[in-house]
Amino acid sequence: MSLNTFGHLFRVTTWGESHGPAIGATVDGVPPGVALTEADLQPWLDRRKPGTSKFTTQRKEPDEVRILSGVFDGVTTGTSIQLMIENTDQRSKDYGDIAQSFRPGHADITYHQKYGLRDYRGGGRSSARETASRVAAGGVARAALAALVPGLKITGYMVQMGAKTIDRTRFDAAQIEENPFWCPDPVMADEWAVYLDDLRLNHNSVGAVIEVVAEGVPAGLGAPLYGKLDSDLASAMMSINAVKAVEIGDGMSAAMLTGVENADEIRMGPNGPEFLSNHAGGILGGISTGQPVICRFAVKPTSSILTPRKTINQRGEDIELITKGRHDPCVGIRAVPVGEAMMACVLLDHLLLDRAQTGGKRGKIGQ
Amino acid sequence: MSLNTFGHLFRVTTWGESHGPAIGATVDGVPPGVALTEADLQPWLDRRKPGTSKFTTQRKEPDEVRILSGVFDGVTTGTSIQLMIENTDQRSKDYGDIAQSFRPGHADITYHQKYGLRDYRGGGRSSARETASRVAAGGVARAALAALVPGLKITGYMVQMGAKTIDRTRFDAAQIEENPFWCPDPVMADEWAVYLDDLRLNHNSVGAVIEVVAEGVPAGLGAPLYGKLDSDLASAMMSINAVKAVEIGDGMSAAMLTGVENADEIRMGPNGPEFLSNHAGGILGGISTGQPVICRFAVKPTSSILTPRKTINQRGEDIELITKGRHDPCVGIRAVPVGEAMMACVLLDHLLLDRAQTGGKRGKIGQ
Amino acid sequence: MSLNTFGHLFRVTTWGESHGPAIGATVDGVPPGVALTEADLQPWLDRRKPGTSKFTTQRKEPDEVRILSGVFDGVTTGTSIQLMIENTDQRSKDYGDIAQSFRPGHADITYHQKYGLRDYRGGGRSSARETASRVAAGGVARAALAALVPGLKITGYMVQMGAKTIDRTRFDAAQIEENPFWCPDPVMADEWAVYLDDLRLNHNSVGAVIEVVAEGVPAGLGAPLYGKLDSDLASAMMSINAVKAVEIGDGMSAAMLTGVENADEIRMGPNGPEFLSNHAGGILGGISTGQPVICRFAVKPTSSILTPRKTINQRGEDIELITKGRHDPCVGIRAVPVGEAMMACVLLDHLLLDRAQTGGKRGKIGQ
Amino acid sequence: MSLNTFGHLFRVTTWGESHGPAIGATVDGVPPGVALTEADLQPWLDRRKPGTSKFTTQRKEPDEVRILSGVFDGVTTGTSIQLMIENTDQRSKDYGDIAQSFRPGHADITYHQKYGLRDYRGGGRSSARETASRVAAGGVARAALAALVPGLKITGYMVQMGAKTIDRTRFDAAQIEENPFWCPDPVMADEWAVYLDDLRLNHNSVGAVIEVVAEGVPAGLGAPLYGKLDSDLASAMMSINAVKAVEIGDGMSAAMLTGVENADEIRMGPNGPEFLSNHAGGILGGISTGQPVICRFAVKPTSSILTPRKTINQRGEDIELITKGRHDPCVGIRAVPVGEAMMACVLLDHLLLDRAQTGGKRGKIGQ
Repeated sequence: MSLNTFGHLFRVTTWGESHGPAIGATVDGVPPGVALTEADLQPWLDRRKPGTSKFTTQRKEPDEVRILSGVFDGVTTGTSIQLMIENTDQRSKDYGDIAQSFRPGHADITYHQKYGLRDYRGGGRSSARETASRVAAGGVARAALAALVPGLKITGYMVQMGAKTIDRTRFDAAQIEENPFWCPDPVMADEWAVYLDDLRLNHNSVGAVIEVVAEGVPAGLGAPLYGKLDSDLASAMMSINAVKAVEIGDGMSAAMLTGVENADEIRMGPNGPEFLSNHAGGILGGISTGQPVICRFAVKPTSSILTPRKTINQRGEDIELITKGRHDPCVGIRAVPVGEAMMACVLLDHLLLDRAQTGGKRGKIGQ
Repeated sequence: MSLNTFGHLFRVTTWGESHGPAIGATVDGVPPGVALTEADLQPWLDRRKPGTSKFTTQRKEPDEVRILSGVFDGVTTGTSIQLMIENTDQRSKDYGDIAQSFRPGHADITYHQKYGLRDYRGGGRSSARETASRVAAGGVARAALAALVPGLKITGYMVQMGAKTIDRTRFDAAQIEENPFWCPDPVMADEWAVYLDDLRLNHNSVGAVIEVVAEGVPAGLGAPLYGKLDSDLASAMMSINAVKAVEIGDGMSAAMLTGVENADEIRMGPNGPEFLSNHAGGILGGISTGQPVICRFAVKPTSSILTPRKTINQRGEDIELITKGRHDPCVGIRAVPVGEAMMACVLLDHLLLDRAQTGGKRGKIGQ
Repeated sequence: MSLNTFGHLFRVTTWGESHGPAIGATVDGVPPGVALTEADLQPWLDRRKPGTSKFTTQRKEPDEVRILSGVFDGVTTGTSIQLMIENTDQRSKDYGDIAQSFRPGHADITYHQKYGLRDYRGGGRSSARETASRVAAGGVARAALAALVPGLKITGYMVQMGAKTIDRTRFDAAQIEENPFWCPDPVMADEWAVYLDDLRLNHNSVGAVIEVVAEGVPAGLGAPLYGKLDSDLASAMMSINAVKAVEIGDGMSAAMLTGVENADEIRMGPNGPEFLSNHAGGILGGISTGQPVICRFAVKPTSSILTPRKTINQRGEDIELITKGRHDPCVGIRAVPVGEAMMACVLLDHLLLDRAQTGGKRGKIGQ
Repeated sequence: MSLNTFGHLFRVTTWGESHGPAIGATVDGVPPGVALTEADLQPWLDRRKPGTSKFTTQRKEPDEVRILSGVFDGVTTGTSIQLMIENTDQRSKDYGDIAQSFRPGHADITYHQKYGLRDYRGGGRSSARETASRVAAGGVARAALAALVPGLKITGYMVQMGAKTIDRTRFDAAQIEENPFWCPDPVMADEWAVYLDDLRLNHNSVGAVIEVVAEGVPAGLGAPLYGKLDSDLASAMMSINAVKAVEIGDGMSAAMLTGVENADEIRMGPNGPEFLSNHAGGILGGISTGQPVICRFAVKPTSSILTPRKTINQRGEDIELITKGRHDPCVGIRAVPVGEAMMACVLLDHLLLDRAQTGGKRGKIGQ
């Protein structure tokens, strides 16, 4: 992975800034013959779209994706696919203040130091707007996965906002699409609504934890030792804006377990090995076990808040800065479809990598 | 990153199995003219070496590293460096049991399923023995970093074993080398000794959390959007055996913070920007800020324990398995020098990447 | 290099088909702060543009390039640059015949066999139209090179058409832009005009040899052993449509020389080493010597001709096929600006690679 | 491809210098379950071995290859394979002269300029000795190809020495192994013997052209647009020491053809398409056609000759230099097995790449 491309064989290169004319992704390595139209991609983008509730940025973007290449007669041709999303709501305004100041918690200061200049309009390249391109690319990955591994299913949801964690005994997958938080616990969803509204009105924001689960992943995906499935998931999720940690299976809590507790015991089932638990999150030695692949990541609170914070400007002067604009009070919410998209891209990539090396054959157990 | 190579420009390819004749690393992209001898690498390997206390495997390996290429007259030539470590203590024994059975929590079953066969001797390629190659490669990275960024310093230590976390008010860097746990809190080190001894005698093991800090990292390292510094660290640390989570800065706890708390405020200091806190762990937008880069990772408990666990064998039969052998009761201990090595490799890689694109110039603040 | 991306650090990913809505290139790894506007790129595209004389395709394409990202306030920001060229003259027509038949000498049959389907409109992805994207990307490379290596100059020209080779004693660089063949020998240019017109009227076409020379290339570029400068040039030029051979320096003729003749002898000049000849084409051991880098490539004759040729269709029937359309009688002509663009991309890429590893320092000779 | 690694999925990283303790290759991405022993590799190395006739260097190297990893119980495990060849005949001698002087036609001066220092013993890393590692890696590729594409056959031979070209009407494949030149024309082999002996006694050397043909290559290999099969072959062959040009099919002569002559016409045969000629060298649009893949490359004359040549030393003084030592009068001879090895590596790599993207399915023609 390097600069603006990720993936080994299914490779996604994103481009575009928050307030430029358009953003997009060049998606390469797609298997030929996969049914794909813009209508297949749009629903994923609609889920990430800003302005859908008071809990997300009020920027109005239709986020309509166009396929400019790589698809012919409704199927992929195996050549590079260009996905373009025009920016339509880049408000023309005076950026004078932000242009010269460094918002705390933002990439303003590091982009300035690295590149010597930056596109300060709406965060430029470091804006979370870029994640729309990932979601579009993830839609392509999902289409290919649907063709290659029919049973595979990817589900993302939020499990924690601030210190408020869902109660897993109330977990109801059907609830995820029923609230603005992608929350599988309806009680907690209500609680979050009150909590976040309060934070928003107090010019504050808050962090969150997102969980993404992939069911139906075949055993054998992952390329040890440096293209391990968990390693690539860690990289993919950590590359999402504001993410500060990535966990697989029990994650940080694995440190608390003893060996007796941690080992996922195995029994032989009618269709092959069955694990009695899934502390491993579906990955052993960097390779999928056939169990659900479970990945979590923590998103820090939105740094753009209306509360004044101490910072400096480009002239090296100490100032206090309020970040006006249309910001998400909990940027983690919109990270859910992004996390799903990254999961889809990584899984397809590893499906292709595995097919290359092994031809997709699996070692026999039993018989 | 792919298969057995990691890094963009400073590239490390490892090879070798636990019980083969040797293991090693091919290290490529090293700047020319860096002073390097085997004596520069050996101390790092000695820190990771097995058999140094009762808390690590009793396998006896001198882990002597030889430089077979890429160094001439005591300096690197800019060509590929081959580092070889001979395996000397591969006990000849009957592997019959392990050869046909899948140890729970191990990569046995996934390697078998992916590749159709596996080198079962001591875990073969999936053994943590491979990390000796990383430590050797990390030594090369440290030598180059010493030449290019004289003030840079990397320190790893253990901050948690099981549920027992260090008290940061007792943090004393000088203590790290004074106990078998790389523990900066001497009180906790004593507590861990008792705790781990008990676990070991009860045929159990336990997980841990390691923290690796790099001080003196220049601002501007990291290649957004998909070669971000944190993204590459996440991938590098997650690729280490038994690691289940990676955190940058506040990590998972960032989810608990509000925006007001999380923003690392900035003031102008005599030598440039100064941050009033470091929730970000020294990385904003995937680029280093100049603050210490802070990375933590969780290591699951050693899966090889003498307590019987349910599993299956290759014939698909349900069995109970005890894993005999010479195993670390807390594999996290020896992960400390490995984490340091990965940090060194990633930082050098990004130093070169940044020098390629920007020439190392930094944007001006003040004056 | 893989699929639709080339380059190590300066990376170009192209996309788009001959008759789709647009084509373009995502250009990554560009140094920040390079002055760049669409007006800097357009002249290079105008040189490659179809329809400029009766010797090139009569397709009318303005080939206007738009910069959609990566440039702010007239300078590059160091982020990915999206270059888009809309297709405006995709004649709507019945492709029935070509859709089901394989034109001899074309990629029709191999695309069909590999991908199971193909975009047959105007050759789809395999059309030479894609080279417009390369020329646009090459314009970005030239802008960066102009900033980093002011004296560097790249010149392409045609040296052979069919069996008719230029007379090097008449070589006049000023003539290159004065005829439709980029021919430095004005006498031969006239001869080619008559020759090619005759071929064209006889429904035939012909091959050509293009030479691209880069002057002012610093010594030290090239990354042995598998990123050698000549190796990357070979790959880059061979990837151009219809190219069947690539030569560096004396090329195939090097086989005819003895060691005494071939050695480029060296004398010390006022500004460093001076070579008494340049059989090597400016590259020794895969690294530039500081002499002009000389590369030649052979382009086969356009396969699309009005003369009927034996072939088969998708149903497996033997047929005779005439390829109607608007085709270049000598596709080599428009390959000249493409070869220049590839040279520019490769040189910038290696400048960055070298800067990464060595910091750009050169070993001392003398003093 | 970069620095010391080549290949997309079947990746070879070579290491080692002419006069260091050993050389070798780390081979990654090999399919699991391929039968492989040292005895499978040794015959290929024996063909390249020095000292087999008076026409090759008199250095005596057994070139015994050891497999240090990645193979278990006689089959590949899918993990990285380390191949090591010890250097045994590095004569201890005074390098004083060569250490400070730049041999014309060698990489001495460019390595010095790029890296600031060089391992001058026997050419160090730039020595053709490195090609033994390629041949060993090529042996691994051949073993995998034998398992995956049983009918595939790779044959290399010399077609030209100096101005003396074989007569293709006398082409007899059985002769290739019968003379020291891998010459398929026995009459020319005798002529070369006299010619080269004369050159050698006159302290001179000469260039050559090698042709490598792969038969039985399935249609569909190659990854347009920047991983084209011909593009990767060009890069692979150009990376071999002393190579100055690479041709596919008609190569440079394609420039001489008209479109009528060049088109390889197609008829339907009992087992699929049949081409009536093979000007294309088995590759159209960067993808294999199913015909023999034909590649040629020119090797310049050995630069190390006993005839004095003008050059400079590191102090910048003009000198005359004779290169003593044990050198091949026609280095092209030993390039034959190297070219075959590179062909094998590139074909296996593309077989895996194709399998990843398409699953190996082929588009239907007929029925």
